[in-house]
Amino acid sequence: MGVEIERKFLLANDGWKNRVKGDTIRQGYLSADHDRVVRIRVMNQQAFVTIKSSTDGLFRNEWEYPIPLEDAQEMLENLCVRPLIEKVRYRIPHDGMIWEVDEFFGENAGLVIAEIELEAVDQTFDLPDWVGREVTEDPHYYNTNLMRNPYQAWSDKGK
Amino acid sequence: MGVEIERKFLLANDGWKNRVKGDTIRQGYLSADHDRVVRIRVMNQQAFVTIKSSTDGLFRNEWEYPIPLEDAQEMLENLCVRPLIEKVRYRIPHDGMIWEVDEFFGENAGLVIAEIELEAVDQTFDLPDWVGREVTEDPHYYNTNLMRNPYQAWSDKGK
Repeated sequence: MGVEIERKFLLANDGWKNRVKGDTIRQGYLSADHDRVVRIRVMNQQAFVTIKSSTDGLFRNEWEYPIPLEDAQEMLENLCVRPLIEKVRYRIPHDGMIWEVDEFFGENAGLVIAEIELEAVDQTFDLPDWVGREVTEDPHYYNTNLMRNPYQAWSDKGK
Repeated sequence: MGVEIERKFLLANDGWKNRVKGDTIRQGYLSADHDRVVRIRVMNQQAFVTIKSSTDGLFRNEWEYPIPLEDAQEMLENLCVRPLIEKVRYRIPHDGMIWEVDEFFGENAGLVIAEIELEAVDQTFDLPDWVGREVTEDPHYYNTNLMRNPYQAWSDKGK
């Protein structure tokens, strides 16, 4: 079991792009409950089932197990809640830390989010100039809510 | 992925008991959705996460993965929907097949169910004389419903 501390930002510009090759991610949910999330993810032909204790705020417990790719593909096709989340993840080094930038496709096309994982809530870090507004506490940007209410349907996109 | 074909019966008498040692099972659900079940189970100090496509009728798809015991115990304590399902499972050979008899405890104490797993829907099998009424199609006896509406709360117990 690991504890995740993540902060999440919108992007100010494209300064992060074309520096690195991205990883294609396709994921879906078996449970997107407020209290317990069960996610099936395929990233670069590797598959995982991930269990999270809550999607709220900075903290959550997380357990992740590798599973056979063909099991994951079958669950994504036939079992997971619609729509699936499709994105390309870029890992961008900056000031000794790694930023993960997720560029969404499908029903969330147009959305790009930058995330940084911290070891303590009060850990300081340098903001790259391509990072925009922080949305850590905004539920609209939780992946589970991007399934329920995809970005393409938002009336206030990009604000 | 495996497909399960199971038939389920109540017990007519105690003729099955004391022949074999039972396995203690403690399980809980991360999702008990009609369409997708995610179960955490600890049986004899071994732990599994199990994903099932549906709790209805004879057929369902099932994927099961071993996970560390301490992860499962933490999820059962802190994450799974209440109440947990506690039972002892006896495996009883009869006429070349194995019957699984589940004796429930906790909020389902008093309930005993016999199950047989088949390879085809029309497979014939001999009913032991300790097997009673078939309840395969009765939703009350689904494990997910024994969580929502435990046996101890039934007004028509044992009918």
